[in-house]
Amino acid sequence: MTTVALDGRGAERGPEAIVGGARAAADDGIALRVFGDPQELGGLESVAGVELVPAADEIGNEDEPVAAVRGKPDSSVVLAAADVAAGRSDALASAGPTGATMTAALFALRRQHGVRRPALTVQLAVPGRDGPPSLLLDVGANAEVRAGDLVQFAYLGAAFSQAVLGVERPRVALLSVGEEAKKGTQNVVDAHAALATASGIDFRGNLEGRDLLGEGVDVIVTDGFTGNVALKTIEGTAKAVAAAVGDAARSNPLAAVGGLMLRPALGGLRREMDPDTTGGAILLGLRGVAVVGHGSSGPEGIANALRLAARAVEQDAVGRIAELLERAGATRAAMRDGRIGQ
Amino acid sequence: MTTVALDGRGAERGPEAIVGGARAAADDGIALRVFGDPQELGGLESVAGVELVPAADEIGNEDEPVAAVRGKPDSSVVLAAADVAAGRSDALASAGPTGATMTAALFALRRQHGVRRPALTVQLAVPGRDGPPSLLLDVGANAEVRAGDLVQFAYLGAAFSQAVLGVERPRVALLSVGEEAKKGTQNVVDAHAALATASGIDFRGNLEGRDLLGEGVDVIVTDGFTGNVALKTIEGTAKAVAAAVGDAARSNPLAAVGGLMLRPALGGLRREMDPDTTGGAILLGLRGVAVVGHGSSGPEGIANALRLAARAVEQDAVGRIAELLERAGATRAAMRDGRIGQ
Repeated sequence: MTTVALDGRGAERGPEAIVGGARAAADDGIALRVFGDPQELGGLESVAGVELVPAADEIGNEDEPVAAVRGKPDSSVVLAAADVAAGRSDALASAGPTGATMTAALFALRRQHGVRRPALTVQLAVPGRDGPPSLLLDVGANAEVRAGDLVQFAYLGAAFSQAVLGVERPRVALLSVGEEAKKGTQNVVDAHAALATASGIDFRGNLEGRDLLGEGVDVIVTDGFTGNVALKTIEGTAKAVAAAVGDAARSNPLAAVGGLMLRPALGGLRREMDPDTTGGAILLGLRGVAVVGHGSSGPEGIANALRLAARAVEQDAVGRIAELLERAGATRAAMRDGRIGQ
Repeated sequence: MTTVALDGRGAERGPEAIVGGARAAADDGIALRVFGDPQELGGLESVAGVELVPAADEIGNEDEPVAAVRGKPDSSVVLAAADVAAGRSDALASAGPTGATMTAALFALRRQHGVRRPALTVQLAVPGRDGPPSLLLDVGANAEVRAGDLVQFAYLGAAFSQAVLGVERPRVALLSVGEEAKKGTQNVVDAHAALATASGIDFRGNLEGRDLLGEGVDVIVTDGFTGNVALKTIEGTAKAVAAAVGDAARSNPLAAVGGLMLRPALGGLRREMDPDTTGGAILLGLRGVAVVGHGSSGPEGIANALRLAARAVEQDAVGRIAELLERAGATRAAMRDGRIGQ
């Protein structure tokens, strides 16, 4: 049975979201150790497979992540990460501040052999896409990267797509400002050249922002600054368009009736585009599984984050990444020697 | 009367788009000199206020912009840009390849005094926004920038917003991955610090991707790589969501009737989000006006690009930018001396 260490503090929507999400995951047969205030989390006391572990402290959004993780050993996220490192849990999940979760995970779980920079990875909610979702990484772990990091991200994403999403031969693309190999920053141009000959990668070239939600590829690689902006731009645009459709449906009685008739059919779209559906982001490149829930997750989002964490453990995502990096010779040593990227 | 030099070649949707757009702009009282193949553009021969100027050559999407602009003096875009430099026309507009248009404009019109990097600037189509559109820059002229360039972009955008869009005191934001001043790349962090004390700029701090289509600010500053990805991500997401709404409306008879009843109300939204509506991007920081139409512009898009060019001339955007940069001491010399940015 897979055990996930869940940070029981810091969810924007409060302990109710944590309790509801933990209950739903426990129902699915995921064992949980939940770190936080036993009183706040009282609703979980009697749930089978859930253990409450007191954690007196909390890391907030205003805390500087590295200082807070070092300075608050009794915070829920630090204790949960330590639980995974000690082997009592198999994976970490948190809906608290992203920076603190990433830092706690990095310190406790450490990087995989040969990985220079772990990457925060999301499954993109593509309306109407058949088959497994595509992955976008990095979406925020590394604001600045080298070309070689982008190449490593390609391996991290491809291995996860294969191991956890079941894509046999993941198609990989590089986010840029044009299809031509010479378009983009120097880093992107260098990464393009390295990926074009990278062993074990089915590289499909550059991809533009307008094709992020297309069907053509399985893994999209970028730096953490661009990826974060792109991901949030997708969210914001989808929300703005949905709101505008809603406004249109309130603009006159005929449209209002039409909107009502259309509503059930739009439910599926709303669910597909809801960040809660994918359960947040996974930090790839560590010696353990760490999932960062969407800040505003509700119970369904927390439950999906826990399911994602459990699935990554059960499919041995970490082992599969190590294997692919090793086999392809795409480790840090290879990057340093200039065998991949710059 | 304002005269615009229009590149009559290279529009993805062919000469018909050029002819239709030129006719509509001429109807609005904009004088045009159209450079291209007089036969292809035959429909314009008899239109009052339109002059056809033969241009034997064309720069294509596959041409490297700098080499092509240097090597093809008889190409339509080079001749049109030269026409502005020679004072026969007041502004340049093209729906040909963006790189070639920017390069031709930069070579012929040159940078304004004190500007290090011109920036490609778009008006964002925000559904339901009241008042003038917000501006996003740079969306592709400079894949890599320094912090000081981002500060200059703030002045370029603010001056344009004031002069051409009539925003009295434009609110300026910096695109980043979090609201905190320390979030983002080093460049962004440095630019944030410089903008926070920049004279003559109403700086509202960082803005995240999810708020790009919000109502809170008038000018959003970023580097050309991130801006290009963000702009195309908006386009792609809006299109994907619209397509999914369409699919939903075809999913069952009840939804189909609802979709039909809603359709007229959605027309406004479609128009608002259509890149043709804003007429493309304007290259700010040159000694003349240059507008780069959206690649896939139809006649309406071309006409709006010409209207944008004419309005920028009539409102003296170039003069207003020079004035603001000078008054605020935000010129290249100030950047070099470290008085703004790094």
